[in-house]
Amino acid sequence: MIRLVTPEEFRRRGHELVDWIADYRAGLVNRPVMAQTAPGAVRTQLPAQPPVAPESFDAIVRDLDAIVVPGLTHWAHPRFFGYFPSNGDLSSVLGDLTSTGLGVIGLAWQSSPALTEVEEVATDWLRQMLALSDAWSGVIQDTASTSTLTALICARERVTSNSFSRGGLQAEAAPLVVYTSAHAHSSVEKAALLAGFGRENLRLVAVDDRFAIRADALDEAIAADIAAGRVPCAIVATTGTTTTTAIDPIAAIADVAQTHGVWLHVDAAMAGSAMILPECRDLWTGIEAADSIIVSPHKWMGAAFDCAVYFVRHPDQLVRVMSTNPSYLQTEADAVVKNYRDWGLPLGRRFRALKLWFLIRSEGVAGLQARLRRDLENTRWLAGQISAAEHWRILNPVVLQTLCLRHEPPGLAGDALDRHTLGWCDRINRSGVAYLTPAMLDGRWMVRVSIGTIQTERIHVEELWRAITNAVGADRP
Amino acid sequence: MIRLVTPEEFRRRGHELVDWIADYRAGLVNRPVMAQTAPGAVRTQLPAQPPVAPESFDAIVRDLDAIVVPGLTHWAHPRFFGYFPSNGDLSSVLGDLTSTGLGVIGLAWQSSPALTEVEEVATDWLRQMLALSDAWSGVIQDTASTSTLTALICARERVTSNSFSRGGLQAEAAPLVVYTSAHAHSSVEKAALLAGFGRENLRLVAVDDRFAIRADALDEAIAADIAAGRVPCAIVATTGTTTTTAIDPIAAIADVAQTHGVWLHVDAAMAGSAMILPECRDLWTGIEAADSIIVSPHKWMGAAFDCAVYFVRHPDQLVRVMSTNPSYLQTEADAVVKNYRDWGLPLGRRFRALKLWFLIRSEGVAGLQARLRRDLENTRWLAGQISAAEHWRILNPVVLQTLCLRHEPPGLAGDALDRHTLGWCDRINRSGVAYLTPAMLDGRWMVRVSIGTIQTERIHVEELWRAITNAVGADRP
Repeated sequence: MIRLVTPEEFRRRGHELVDWIADYRAGLVNRPVMAQTAPGAVRTQLPAQPPVAPESFDAIVRDLDAIVVPGLTHWAHPRFFGYFPSNGDLSSVLGDLTSTGLGVIGLAWQSSPALTEVEEVATDWLRQMLALSDAWSGVIQDTASTSTLTALICARERVTSNSFSRGGLQAEAAPLVVYTSAHAHSSVEKAALLAGFGRENLRLVAVDDRFAIRADALDEAIAADIAAGRVPCAIVATTGTTTTTAIDPIAAIADVAQTHGVWLHVDAAMAGSAMILPECRDLWTGIEAADSIIVSPHKWMGAAFDCAVYFVRHPDQLVRVMSTNPSYLQTEADAVVKNYRDWGLPLGRRFRALKLWFLIRSEGVAGLQARLRRDLENTRWLAGQISAAEHWRILNPVVLQTLCLRHEPPGLAGDALDRHTLGWCDRINRSGVAYLTPAMLDGRWMVRVSIGTIQTERIHVEELWRAITNAVGADRP
Repeated sequence: MIRLVTPEEFRRRGHELVDWIADYRAGLVNRPVMAQTAPGAVRTQLPAQPPVAPESFDAIVRDLDAIVVPGLTHWAHPRFFGYFPSNGDLSSVLGDLTSTGLGVIGLAWQSSPALTEVEEVATDWLRQMLALSDAWSGVIQDTASTSTLTALICARERVTSNSFSRGGLQAEAAPLVVYTSAHAHSSVEKAALLAGFGRENLRLVAVDDRFAIRADALDEAIAADIAAGRVPCAIVATTGTTTTTAIDPIAAIADVAQTHGVWLHVDAAMAGSAMILPECRDLWTGIEAADSIIVSPHKWMGAAFDCAVYFVRHPDQLVRVMSTNPSYLQTEADAVVKNYRDWGLPLGRRFRALKLWFLIRSEGVAGLQARLRRDLENTRWLAGQISAAEHWRILNPVVLQTLCLRHEPPGLAGDALDRHTLGWCDRINRSGVAYLTPAMLDGRWMVRVSIGTIQTERIHVEELWRAITNAVGADRP
C-alpha cells in the first residue's frame, strides 16, 4: 500500500521537528561536545534490514533522540573549537528548508528560473561584500575540494589549449606542473592527483617563518621546471591555511603567475569570510590578479553546509570545459540566460542560493561583520591569556580566529612533548567540555583552537581556557 | 550589531515556513507547471546590493511568494512529466531538515560518528532493496555526474597501477580509452573529458534498434583499440538511458569487460529505483560483475535531492585514489572505522543519510514498491491510449515509466515534422497544464513523457493525454 506523507501530516510533523531542532540548539551547551560513542555503537543499534511496512514518525524521532544525537559531535555547540566553524545559522537552516521543500532542480535556467537568478544575485551580493571587482562571477559549489578540482582542470585545459577536445591530458608531451605549499589544504594535493597531474608534478614550495609561500622560491621552482622542459600550469595559494591560518602573499605570487602565464587559484575557503571586514582585506592584496577564488560561506560566515562560492574572472573558459548540451536539456532561452550546469561538475543542482540569501538578509552585512569582529576579539583575548601564562606558547601569527598552542613545561621535548600535547587535548575532548583539533606543525603536535561558532561568546572561551589549564595540570608529573 | 535567529525565533518562523511549504505542496495542482517568467525577470526584482541592516523574516517570505515561487518550474507538481521524477517526498524533506538543523559535518568518523554509521546502514538497506549481494558497499554522493567521474578516475588509476602516485595520467604512454554509447547520459562524456581521457579516446559504441549497446560492437571496438596499441580502460553501460530508458545488456557487456580486464561502471541513476521491484530485476541481469554502480534515490524513489548512491565492489581501490590523511584529520578511531571522506571528491559531507533513512522508514519498502508499480501501471495506461490513437507513435520500447512520443499526421515529415513536434510540446509547456521535455531521437525531435512524480495519479495522466490531443488539434492545418 502506498504510504505518503501528506501536506497535512507534514505540517504537523514539521512543527514537531522544528521544535525538536530548536530544543537541540538551545540545549547544546549542556551536552558533551564530542560524541561519547564507540566505533560501531550507532550501527549496531539500528536494524540490519530495511522495514517492509511503514514506520511511524514517532519511532524515527525516538531513534534520533536515543541513538543519533548521542552519536554526534556537535558542531554548533558554543564550545566547539575544532576544525573550522561550520555554523548553519538558523536563518540559513530556514533557507535550506525552503529549498528542500520546494524540491526544484536546476538543470537548465528553464527548469526553474528563480533557482538560477537568485543564485546570480546572492553570489553577486557576496562578491560586493568581499570587495571584489565586478570582473568576478560567482557560482555555488558544494565544497572547496570540488572547486579546487574544477580550478585545476580549467587550468589544465587553458595551458593545453583545451586538450579535452582532442587526445586529452594523456596526449600532452611536456608534463604540466602544479605549485602549492605543504601548508595548503589536503584537498589541493587530492585535486591535483584526481586531475591527472601525478604526485611527481606537484611542487610543495618552501614557506617562510610565518608558514606562507615564499614568492622567490616559487619563481625559482617554476624557472627550474621550464628549464627542464616541463610546463608550469597552476599555482594554488591560500588565504588562511588550515593548520595555522597562514597568509600566502597573493600580490607577489600573482606577479610570478603573470610572468609565467600560470593559472592562480586562491583558496580562501575559511578566511575568505573575513574579507567582509575592510580591516582584513590587506590579507589578500593582489586578489584581483587571480584567475579563480573559493570562499565558503558555510564556514565562519554561517551559511548552512554545503555552500562554497567559486569566483572566476573568465566564465567562458569555465563553461567551455564544463559544458554539455544534449537535446533534452536545450531550451529556447539558452542564448540569453545562465545555465549553471556548465559552471561545475554536477548536472543537477539544489536551490542552494536560498540558504545564502536568507543568511545575508537575516543578519545583514553589518550584523555579519559584527559577529566576525566578536570572534576576532575573543581570539585576541585568549591569545593574551596564553601569552601571559607560564610555559605556554602560541606557534602561529594570530591573524584571524585560529590559535596554535603548545604547553611546553620545562624538561619536556620530542616524543614526550608530543605525548603531553596529545594527552591534554584528548582529555579535554573526552571530557565533553570542549572540542579541539590537534595537528602537526614543523614535525611536532600542537593543538588548534578555532573560534567562531555562532553561539560562542566570551564566556565559552573563558571556560575553554579554564578547561585547558585544568587538563594540563592533571598531567603534571 | 549582531543579529542572530534565536532558537525561539527559529521555532516561530520554522512553523510558519513548514506551513508555507505544506500550502505550497497542497496547492501545486492549481499552479502552472512551467515558470511563466522571462529571462532576467526574477533578478531585476531583487536589490542589486546586499542589505546592510537585518531584514525581517516577513520580508523574505513576501519575496518568496511574490518573486521566487512564480519564477519556478514545479518539479513536485502532479502534472510534471519533464526530465525525470525528482521527488523530495515530504518524509525525506523532514530528514533533510533534521540534517541541516543538526549542522554536523562528516570530515572523519569522529567528527560525528552517527553521520557515518547511519549512512552505512541506510546505503546497506538500499543495497538489499536492490537485491545486490553483500559484496557491494555504498556511499552517498551528490549526483550521478560526480559518481561517474569518480568511477572513471578509479578505472584510470586501476589500469595504470595508480599513476597518480607517480607522473600522473600525463606520463602514460598508451592512450587509455573509454567506451559508452551515444545514448549514455551527457555526464559520461563530461566525466571522460574532465578525467583527462580526451574526446578522441571516447568511443560511442553502436546500438541496436532498442537503443541498447551492441556487445559485439563493443568487443570489436575494444579489439581494434588493442590492435592499435591503445589501452581499453572503462565501459559505462546504462540501465535506463535518459532519452528512451534503453537497457544496455549488462551480462553480455560484463563478459566483454572481463575478457579484456576493463572497468565496468553501470549508470542506473534513474532506473535503478525500479530494481526494488523483483519483476524489474531482469533489466540488469549480470550486475554483480560490474565494478561500480550509481543509483540515485533522489530521482524516482523519492529522496530529496541530492542523494545519489555509489556502489563499489572494491572500496580499497576507491579509498586508495581518494584518500587524504593530513594530521588535522587523524583520530585514534581511524583504524577501525569508515572515513567516508575517502570515498568521494569532497572532504566535507552533510548528514545526507537522514533523508534516505526517513524516506525508507516512512514509506516502507512495500510502500515504495507500491508507488513505483502505480507509476508503471499509469505508464502502461497512457501507452495504450497512444497506441490506439490515430497518427501517434511510441518510439521507444516501454520498459519503465518513460514514453517517447511523436504525432505524425499524414504528409508531415522532416523539418516540418520537427516544427510540429516542438510546436505542440511548447504549447503544452506554455499553457502551464503540464511539463514535457522534447529530445532528439535518430535525428528528429520527439517528446518524452516521464511519469513518476509522487503526486501523479491516474487522473493527472488522463489530463495530460487530453492536453496533448488538444495541443495537436490546435496545430492542425
